[in-house]
Amino acid sequence: MLVYLNGTYVPKERATISVDDRGFIFGDGVYEVIRARDGQLFEAAAHFERLAAGLDALEIQGLARAELQTLETIARELLERNGLVQGNGESGGASEATIYLQVTRGAAPRTHAFPRVATTPTVYLAASPFTPAVALQERGGTAITLPDVRWARCNIKTINLVPNVLAKQRAVEAGATEAIFVRDGAITDGASTNVFAVFDGEVRTPPLSTYLLPGITRRVVLDLAAESGIPVREQPVLLEELARADELFLTGTTTDVQPVCELDGRRIGAGTPGPVTRRLQSALAGRLAGLARAVAS
Amino acid sequence: MLVYLNGTYVPKERATISVDDRGFIFGDGVYEVIRARDGQLFEAAAHFERLAAGLDALEIQGLARAELQTLETIARELLERNGLVQGNGESGGASEATIYLQVTRGAAPRTHAFPRVATTPTVYLAASPFTPAVALQERGGTAITLPDVRWARCNIKTINLVPNVLAKQRAVEAGATEAIFVRDGAITDGASTNVFAVFDGEVRTPPLSTYLLPGITRRVVLDLAAESGIPVREQPVLLEELARADELFLTGTTTDVQPVCELDGRRIGAGTPGPVTRRLQSALAGRLAGLARAVAS
Repeated sequence: MLVYLNGTYVPKERATISVDDRGFIFGDGVYEVIRARDGQLFEAAAHFERLAAGLDALEIQGLARAELQTLETIARELLERNGLVQGNGESGGASEATIYLQVTRGAAPRTHAFPRVATTPTVYLAASPFTPAVALQERGGTAITLPDVRWARCNIKTINLVPNVLAKQRAVEAGATEAIFVRDGAITDGASTNVFAVFDGEVRTPPLSTYLLPGITRRVVLDLAAESGIPVREQPVLLEELARADELFLTGTTTDVQPVCELDGRRIGAGTPGPVTRRLQSALAGRLAGLARAVAS
Repeated sequence: MLVYLNGTYVPKERATISVDDRGFIFGDGVYEVIRARDGQLFEAAAHFERLAAGLDALEIQGLARAELQTLETIARELLERNGLVQGNGESGGASEATIYLQVTRGAAPRTHAFPRVATTPTVYLAASPFTPAVALQERGGTAITLPDVRWARCNIKTINLVPNVLAKQRAVEAGATEAIFVRDGAITDGASTNVFAVFDGEVRTPPLSTYLLPGITRRVVLDLAAESGIPVREQPVLLEELARADELFLTGTTTDVQPVCELDGRRIGAGTPGPVTRRLQSALAGRLAGLARAVAS
């Protein structure tokens, strides 16, 4: 697998970074995971906009807006060079892949404050084949809730992910597919997803704040709901309210729309994926298929 | 400069880690900074105990207790190999150095949960010459306060340090030497230090909790205060109380006891380092000198 690191395409096993990299020492960087189908990036503009916002928030300079655009070219190039642009001939399916993209402040002698001498950011991109969790989306998963111990700037997509790592591990150990964070009685994010509930036909998800990751798929799903005439409301969702939710689902770049049928061991609604979730799954699938059609045409 | 990385002593410029290292991707690791004088490690046992607690908290396995002990040997070896065990002949002073030590969960394909196949932790140690900030300790520094936006497990010394990085940078930009975090109206830590105040001759510092880094120098200073007959109390310190504090100081492995004469632009006490701070500086200096004497004898 070829990856891109600081200007060069290299085999992943030869892609190494300095022990002085502030990504390694402080987690001083941001990242994105972008979905690709048949070599086309899904919602690329939104991902690069969020990346730029994250770099601004951390004041990581040295990557001009113009260079951010070249990252998109690099991502496409990686898909091409790694044979991820065309579907598998045997199954006839589309070529599914993800792009992982990380930018850190670069390498410098260790000091908490920004280095006095400007560093060159470390830029790393990798492309990987991806298999959507179709069965899980079909039958639905389960989730547990955990206190949201993350920091107060979850809107910045940094690589400071220890709380997410620990939460996801707790979910795995509980036999669940996701851990949903709860802060001050209200749900925020999943460990690597955004969370939606359905009450009486209305889709609700917590409003964007510094406690929420502004998910790209979250935005797409909100738009799709509106386009489909499904009422949506961005409003806090209390954990105690979920007892009477009809449906619950997660969204994410590699999660798509994933039903949650059981939370903390209790059934949500009928305990099976609900109709609103199904409509949104279908709408998102259509949007992703449109990406592939755009290539074919 | 020779560093130690995963079993080998290598020049730092050749010490590189995989882009798949979970330290680089998730900040999934812990670290220590240990003071060394004339080749002797200060409070080594306490540092290795905290390291072990951090590894336990993150469930990073694969480093046995016995191996943790070898890290101490490696640290001493690094001091030796880098010529940091003997004082500079010209000045006749002691050889001051720091050991930086980091352990991450190791390299694995990216997935938030722990890798299914056990990874070998990445172990990195470096020794650096160190110059105590004597002038700053003599004349005292200044600090600003900032909301404590860190996560809720600050007692684990992880490399998820973006909030600390940003806070320290804010301090630098304000012309201050440290940023002190405030959570729910009470002070917690400095960006890279612990915080102490003196009220009517009594030393006060926030009690250990999940919101506080259990500093080694903090513990030493509390012990020294008790030994010196100075009343100490581990009790929350409200920001508003600091207006009537007689003294304020910071502690840390590379900070020693550093007076803070001004907070958010307002003088603390007389605006100069106070007598209790001076006594504790002197006591800590004595403890560090004892380390050097132990070598000489």
